[in-house]
Amino acid sequence: MTEITFLDNVTVELVDAMGGDLSVARAAQVSLRGQNDPDPEKITGLINYLMREKHGSPFEHNAFTFYAKVPIFVVREWQRHRIGWSYNEMSGRYTKLSAEFYVPKADRPLVNVGTSAKPEFSAGSSVQVAETQERLERSYSDAWFEYEALLGQGIANEVARSVLPVGIYTQMYVTANARSIMAFLSLRTKDERATHYSRPQHEIELAARKIEEIFAEKFPITYKAYNENGRVSP
Amino acid sequence: MTEITFLDNVTVELVDAMGGDLSVARAAQVSLRGQNDPDPEKITGLINYLMREKHGSPFEHNAFTFYAKVPIFVVREWQRHRIGWSYNEMSGRYTKLSAEFYVPKADRPLVNVGTSAKPEFSAGSSVQVAETQERLERSYSDAWFEYEALLGQGIANEVARSVLPVGIYTQMYVTANARSIMAFLSLRTKDERATHYSRPQHEIELAARKIEEIFAEKFPITYKAYNENGRVSP
Amino acid sequence: MTEITFLDNVTVELVDAMGGDLSVARAAQVSLRGQNDPDPEKITGLINYLMREKHGSPFEHNAFTFYAKVPIFVVREWQRHRIGWSYNEMSGRYTKLSAEFYVPKADRPLVNVGTSAKPEFSAGSSVQVAETQERLERSYSDAWFEYEALLGQGIANEVARSVLPVGIYTQMYVTANARSIMAFLSLRTKDERATHYSRPQHEIELAARKIEEIFAEKFPITYKAYNENGRVSP
Amino acid sequence: MTEITFLDNVTVELVDAMGGDLSVARAAQVSLRGQNDPDPEKITGLINYLMREKHGSPFEHNAFTFYAKVPIFVVREWQRHRIGWSYNEMSGRYTKLSAEFYVPKADRPLVNVGTSAKPEFSAGSSVQVAETQERLERSYSDAWFEYEALLGQGIANEVARSVLPVGIYTQMYVTANARSIMAFLSLRTKDERATHYSRPQHEIELAARKIEEIFAEKFPITYKAYNENGRVSP
Repeated sequence: MTEITFLDNVTVELVDAMGGDLSVARAAQVSLRGQNDPDPEKITGLINYLMREKHGSPFEHNAFTFYAKVPIFVVREWQRHRIGWSYNEMSGRYTKLSAEFYVPKADRPLVNVGTSAKPEFSAGSSVQVAETQERLERSYSDAWFEYEALLGQGIANEVARSVLPVGIYTQMYVTANARSIMAFLSLRTKDERATHYSRPQHEIELAARKIEEIFAEKFPITYKAYNENGRVSP
Repeated sequence: MTEITFLDNVTVELVDAMGGDLSVARAAQVSLRGQNDPDPEKITGLINYLMREKHGSPFEHNAFTFYAKVPIFVVREWQRHRIGWSYNEMSGRYTKLSAEFYVPKADRPLVNVGTSAKPEFSAGSSVQVAETQERLERSYSDAWFEYEALLGQGIANEVARSVLPVGIYTQMYVTANARSIMAFLSLRTKDERATHYSRPQHEIELAARKIEEIFAEKFPITYKAYNENGRVSP
Repeated sequence: MTEITFLDNVTVELVDAMGGDLSVARAAQVSLRGQNDPDPEKITGLINYLMREKHGSPFEHNAFTFYAKVPIFVVREWQRHRIGWSYNEMSGRYTKLSAEFYVPKADRPLVNVGTSAKPEFSAGSSVQVAETQERLERSYSDAWFEYEALLGQGIANEVARSVLPVGIYTQMYVTANARSIMAFLSLRTKDERATHYSRPQHEIELAARKIEEIFAEKFPITYKAYNENGRVSP
Repeated sequence: MTEITFLDNVTVELVDAMGGDLSVARAAQVSLRGQNDPDPEKITGLINYLMREKHGSPFEHNAFTFYAKVPIFVVREWQRHRIGWSYNEMSGRYTKLSAEFYVPKADRPLVNVGTSAKPEFSAGSSVQVAETQERLERSYSDAWFEYEALLGQGIANEVARSVLPVGIYTQMYVTANARSIMAFLSLRTKDERATHYSRPQHEIELAARKIEEIFAEKFPITYKAYNENGRVSP
């Protein structure tokens, strides 16, 4: 039987990127002056104006490709973002998946002390933490055992995978632009600079924060304007 | 412990619909004559022409809303269709899921006798069928037991669900138009009238065939033209 | 020569519609309780919650088809809305266009007293109004004369139309859903209930206000929540 | 009065680009083997397979930004492409447009000898050519004169532009990916390697051929597979 790995984090790596704050300014400026480079001193002001007045299209002339390794329950939320997002994910039909499963760290809040509609989380007791980790690991291991047993009987990947839990890791290539990334961050991070309320699940926020870091580095002026304008996509 | 149900099929029901072949013809005809009703005798010819020459937009002025109950591994493939598709799916964060799991019928081909890249399926032996059903049911039941145990310890839905397998049923509302439905059928059915090759998984084809039936009834002329033009979305 | 008509307004008529506030609530509720009808007394609260927390997808399970007759410069702005919008427009290649042109009413503000980037309009003097109307009518008439002359020489529609001004009317079928309509209204109306600033051109706002009226009638609860939450699409 | 320029061609220049055939292969391969580079000898076979079986998503992890200068009647057709296309166009509201107008070359076929629905073009006589050029130039000049006269009276850009013809040039930034470019080429070029019939207007085909050249250079293997598989987007 394959050795099983338990992981407590997500992976997001930048594969390729195009564009930056200058590309935003250039695209915005074609409105006014055709194909001339914007005055460098005016880029910040221009981007702030675009963000504030919700001119979103100049933020689309760029691209990021990421490689991500996340549990299936995270990728399911992620792929609900349709506009300006492209995905290619590891197939459970064409290949045998990897024996890697998500088990939260001890400091991941485990208990919902709010309601279903308005969840508020608090850390579990040490007993709850231990029991959660133990039950997840056991359940994942049992499912993996059945998966391999079915494959061993000649059953097709696509049938055998039915037993695999949504806590198993999957891998994907993802491509998005600055506008779609800002829309994603708006919903998948909880941040005091935001003017709206969002309730991202902890694990997709882990992925979103990694994307945010890369985005902030590539588009520093846009990122600042995004934060200063309520973290809402223009 | 909740009683567990094993199901071997998918549910797709029509909730609401707008438009039909006439709406296709009307939209196409605004090109030529503005807001006049098309000659009824010419609708078939017009729709055939649109399909053949890949004028896709007239097939978008309509809508279907479906309620679907399918396993998670089916909904994962379904939601990869981004353009012209809207989804709202039962949340494993806000609610406890239902104890309903997918176990294939005896006649569902179980064994891949092709390659990974080009799977070809054949029925399994009676032993393989029995073992598959038994292993799936046992694995599902074990996972459900751990899920309820975690919830019983006060662990949040969104954490406990990590153990649930992709064979569990989920529910969703789905809205699409005739054009996006034809694109979906092109990839999610295998059909000898098609000019291209597709390899849909059996279970999403079950859902696609239910959609196809509803679509054929609401858009009989469009559906006929679709089949006669190689089952490719215009 | 064809008689020329000068119009000072736009036409937007509802052709077909599907769904309403109940469809929003139902789609939202599948998250929690599967396929059960929502409690009628709770629909308003539920829709407010969706709007406030930016859960946009439940507003997509519906559709409106409109017939619109507007000048080309309006349709050019309109068709920049890509997501959740479908268009079929009268073709200047396949048909001869109609001799209908837009001339603003006397009360349409004509003079920009702001800057290019932040236009603020004031009414023109009576001389400016008269001169504008006269110049537009003469210029339109001259262009139409050349258009017909070219067609009369056997020149193809698609070449002859090059001389037609963007003030000529065109016709189209348009389909959108409540979410895409709210995004359109956010940018194409200027409204004191909005929390952001928008600068729609007067003529597309004429069209947007007609859409808004139809939308408000079909989705009264959603429309109220939209206004109370800053007229931003969720 | 501003000097008027008559042009007989379109401009499409590459501003920025990301990705190539390798990015297609990598994205496809994550399905099978996670984040490993594909075997260079197998890239061609893999891309052919993707094209043939209509796996479109691997062709989305890349981007092209173009600067285009084309007449308004071309940009109107271009912007009908909604999916995977981003646009920022010169604004006739915020700026005064440039006095550049499209007049076809002598060898542009001018006469439709087919029907409206199935246009077939032939070259015009030398008289037709001369008359077309003369009428276009006169009509454009008259329209420009009225435009400047209105601006000179203090009338706002957005009102004065109503008289400008669709033959005037506009400028834009455009961003798209390989998949959306192939869909564009399918409809906007007429090519004997295509398995379907398309009827692009001559002037948008001029732009499409410039895009095709850039695309072919950046994605040579994909481009070859596209041609060999009927010039249909996967």
